Parts: sequence; C-alpha cells; structure tokens
Amino acid sequence: MIPAISSHIALIESSIQEISLPGKPENLYEPIRYFMSLGGKRMRPVLLLLGHELFGGKAKDVIPQALAVEIFHNFSLVHDDIMDNAPLRRAKATVHEKWNRNIAILSGDAMLVKAYEYLGQTHSPHFKKIFDLFNKTALEVCEGQQYDMDFENQSVSIADYLEMIRLKTSVLLGASLTIGAILANASDKDCEHLYQFGQHLGIAFQLQDDLLDAFGDPEKFGKKTGGDIAANKKTYLMLTALQDAEGATKEALTSALLLHKHDEKITRILAIFEQLNVKEKTRAEMDKHFATAKSHLEKIEAETGQKNILLQLSESLMIRVH
Amino acid sequence: MIPAISSHIALIESSIQEISLPGKPENLYEPIRYFMSLGGKRMRPVLLLLGHELFGGKAKDVIPQALAVEIFHNFSLVHDDIMDNAPLRRAKATVHEKWNRNIAILSGDAMLVKAYEYLGQTHSPHFKKIFDLFNKTALEVCEGQQYDMDFENQSVSIADYLEMIRLKTSVLLGASLTIGAILANASDKDCEHLYQFGQHLGIAFQLQDDLLDAFGDPEKFGKKTGGDIAANKKTYLMLTALQDAEGATKEALTSALLLHKHDEKITRILAIFEQLNVKEKTRAEMDKHFATAKSHLEKIEAETGQKNILLQLSESLMIRVH
Repeated sequence: MIPAISSHIALIESSIQEISLPGKPENLYEPIRYFMSLGGKRMRPVLLLLGHELFGGKAKDVIPQALAVEIFHNFSLVHDDIMDNAPLRRAKATVHEKWNRNIAILSGDAMLVKAYEYLGQTHSPHFKKIFDLFNKTALEVCEGQQYDMDFENQSVSIADYLEMIRLKTSVLLGASLTIGAILANASDKDCEHLYQFGQHLGIAFQLQDDLLDAFGDPEKFGKKTGGDIAANKKTYLMLTALQDAEGATKEALTSALLLHKHDEKITRILAIFEQLNVKEKTRAEMDKHFATAKSHLEKIEAETGQKNILLQLSESLMIRVH
Repeated sequence: MIPAISSHIALIESSIQEISLPGKPENLYEPIRYFMSLGGKRMRPVLLLLGHELFGGKAKDVIPQALAVEIFHNFSLVHDDIMDNAPLRRAKATVHEKWNRNIAILSGDAMLVKAYEYLGQTHSPHFKKIFDLFNKTALEVCEGQQYDMDFENQSVSIADYLEMIRLKTSVLLGASLTIGAILANASDKDCEHLYQFGQHLGIAFQLQDDLLDAFGDPEKFGKKTGGDIAANKKTYLMLTALQDAEGATKEALTSALLLHKHDEKITRILAIFEQLNVKEKTRAEMDKHFATAKSHLEKIEAETGQKNILLQLSESLMIRVH
C-alpha cells in the first residue's frame, strides 16, 4: 500500500468512529453505526482528500466532506442491499437481514440526511458549488441503480451498460475527487479533468470487477468465480458475447443461459467467452478507460508528486487481473 | 377557505406542476410525478409562505423552499407507505402498489435529494441557518417514524406517544413556518415562537386525527370510524384508556383488544372510552396544545393582519370534531 494512502485511510477510519449519532432510537442509529464500521476500501473519501491535496489543501481540512461522500455511499449500499435481497455485505449480515427491511429503509434515509449534515459543515465560499455537484451526483447514482434494476427485464446494449455503470458507480468517484479540488480553489478546467479522471477510472474498475468475477483467481479474489454467469447477470462480458455470437455459437450461448446446474452453466459459458475473445475485448475496453483517465490526470496543472500518488493508487487498484 | 390560503395553495400546485424532472429513467421519475400530483392539503409549503409573509416577505420569493418541504414530506410518505404496507394514499394506489417496492424505495430516495436541490436554490445569507434546521428536522422525522414502528411491539406511555407525534409530524410544521420566517429576516425570538406555534399546532392536529378516527362523522370525515381501534393502534385515546382503566373495566378492555370481529370490538371499546371519559381527556390535551400554539403566536412581533391569517387557518383546521 502506498504510504500516503494508508495514513489517509487511518484518518478516515478514526473520523468514522467519531461520527456523532444520538443513542435513541436505537433501531435507527445502531444500524448506521454497524454498517459504517463494516470497513471497505474507503476509496471515495480517500479520493476526496487526495483531490484536495493535489491543489495544495490539507487533508484534515476536508474530513467532514470526506465523511459526507462515504456516508452517502454507505446509504446507497444499505438501500441497494434491500433491493437486491443481498444477505451479506463485506462478509457480514446486511442491515435488512440483521434488523429488518423497514429499519434498513429508514436508517438508510437517516444516513442520507447525515451525509448532507456533514456536507453542511463546509465554511467555504465554494459551498454552493460542491452542494450542487453533490446533489447532481446523488440523483445520478439513483438513476444508475434504477437502470441496473430495469436492465434485468429488458435487452441492453453495451452502450446502455457503460452508461449505467458510469451513473451507478463512476460519477461518485469523479465527484469525490472534484469536491476536494474545489475546496482547494482548483480551476474549473482542472476540476473537469479530475472529474473525468475519476469517472473513467470508475468505469475501468467496474469492467475489472466484471472480469474478475469470471476469470479472477478465487484465492486472491476472495470469492468463487462465475457468480455473475450463474445469476444471468448482464455484465460487459455477457453483453459482448450476446452481441458477437453468431450461428451455432449463438445457439450454444442461448441454451447455456437456460441451464440450472451452476457448474455446468459456468463451464459452458466460459468456453463460449473464450471462443469469442470476450476476455480480451473487455480488457481492451477497460484499458481504454484507464488510458483516458490517465490522459486527463496528465493535463491537470498540479505538482507531479501529488499527481503520482493518484496515479500509483489507481495502478495499484488496476493490477488484479491478467 | 380563507382567500389568502386558496391563492397560496394554487401557487404551490402550479409550482409543483413545474418541478423539473428528467424523462429517464421513467421508473425513477414517473413515480415522483405521480405522487406529487396526488394532492393533499399542501399545509407545509403554505405555512412556509405564511411564515415568510408574516415578516414582510413575498410568497413568490420562497417557492423553491416551499417545494423543498413539500417534496420532503412526500418522500417521507412514499417510504412510510412501504413500511406500513399501505395500499392507498389519498384514495389512489401507493407507489409500491402501483410500481413495486424497490421502485418506491429508490424514487423516495431521489425525492429526498430533489428536496435538497430545491432548498439549495436559496440565495440568502441565511442559507446555512435554514439548511441546519432542515437537516435537524429531517432526522427528527426519521426518529419519529422509527419510534412509531418500535411502539407496535412495546408498552408506550402517554409522554412517549406525544414525543413520537411531535417528531413524526409536528417538527416539520414548525420548521416550515420558521424557514419562511428566517428568509424574511425574522428575529431569533420570533422564529422560536413561530416554531413553537407550529409544533403545538401539529400535536393538536394529530390528537384531533386520533379523535376523528374514533368519533368523527363518517360522512364529513370521508372514511369509516374505528380503523385505529380495529388495528389495535396505540393512539392517545387507547393509551389514555389503558392508563386509566382499573378493575373490571381494565379486564373488559383487555378482552376487547383480543377480539377479531371488528364491529363488535369497535363497539365495545368505544363504550369503554365513554366510561373513562377518553374523548374529553383527549380533547382537553388537544385544546391545551392549541392554546399553547396560540399563545406563542400572540407573542410574535408582527402585523396583526398577517398573524390573523395564521390564526384563522389553524382554527379552520381545528373545528372538525365536537
């Protein structure tokens, strides 16, 4: 781990421990404490701190805003977990499993309000600008989640999919970096490049996740591969296969999708992916977004040392699949 | 209807029609348009306009903030309806019934963000003050809803109940009035009196609702009475009965609560309410809060004509039960 990053994560973790929440009603606030303590990479708040430092700001001055994006992200996970009927999050019970669905809805709502409360701890002439960006991003994340749910029941193009992951996950990375930058008086032009850096990085990460689910090393990856295939998920890989398959391959894919036996289904579909070079095509798309992200980073007028920390961080997150 | 109020309602209704929402994703934004069009008394935004006019402001200058409180209120209804499994709202299908539960969760979330977006259209040095009040109120409304759910499974004192309805419904009335007042440069002292006016008015309204559900005229009230009794709801009436009943009356109440036949249950419990003077006791508590509300209004330093509009509005809303 890059030294600058681990100290930032430690700063975020200790700030999360200090989030002030009333004791009562326990069923509203205890789930928030629980969920916020589950950990995770804390990528969004770390990016916010790095975006701030990139333009000469001090990390400790933007802790409330970093907490705002992290609490917002966790709010969206609590509600997504209900919608996806997910029993586990970070190997622990989700809020609706540990308490119940209503409590998960309501503590999620309270988290969203809390995120705004932390954002409101901004004493900067730029407050309006970050508030507008936060609102725009929050709505886009909702839109992304809605498209994700809609896509289960309709045919989806690769362009639709890329737009969905942009909204659902990438805009918040871009916004986190940019909020940090705005609060350090970065120029509009630099903010725009930083936002694009975060956004394309986010798309690359998501494509990497799709790749890992099918081709990752279960030992390094920490979970069994093929989950997306078994669940008929419309990932970039599957959409590429559906687009490119013809004739007998198309028939083989269609019939494999209908299989109920998971192991056989995964084996057959992976073979079709191989035949169609799906892995290589996905990796090419991922590399394209990663390269675009880096080209935006290069254009930013800031100290090379600080830019390198962002570059190293993104590279360290992008090396998980070969 | 008081003339000043009907023009305010018309202004709110036309502003609601002009709320700008993207066309896509349809499943995210169409439920918002639908729910916001269902009507209702629009009490919160009207109070915000009146709070503004009370201190010399113009209603048209605080439309975005009025929309913010109305959208927030409707967000809370969409999510409450899921939690309560309610099929109908204002005699129309609830969002989770007309679409589905996940769509109701997510469009509710988007409404909460939209409320903040409208609040952000404030160009006033007082923005921070109304933003803090809005956040505090939003969290309190969540707390009230959580207590309401918790109360289904625990014993509840009358004091607990009054605190629950204060949080769940009254603070938003107080905050709506106060946001309008703050934006018209009202003094802290006047803001505090106005907030207390709204808060006690809200408690009085809720007690009136409890009374109407048991004793209202079904023809005027628009729905069958006894619904709360049939559902074993812990209203002010029921909690008073549970507190005051002794000996044979207590036994009669306990056994009536266990009845499954709704009509018999309602008849028996209404008889016990009569025996214990529950109606009079509830009305006394309601009158007390209404009187406290009015005493705060009197103390406000503002034009008598404007104060009278608020007084008339509250009296027009308080005359429904005898």
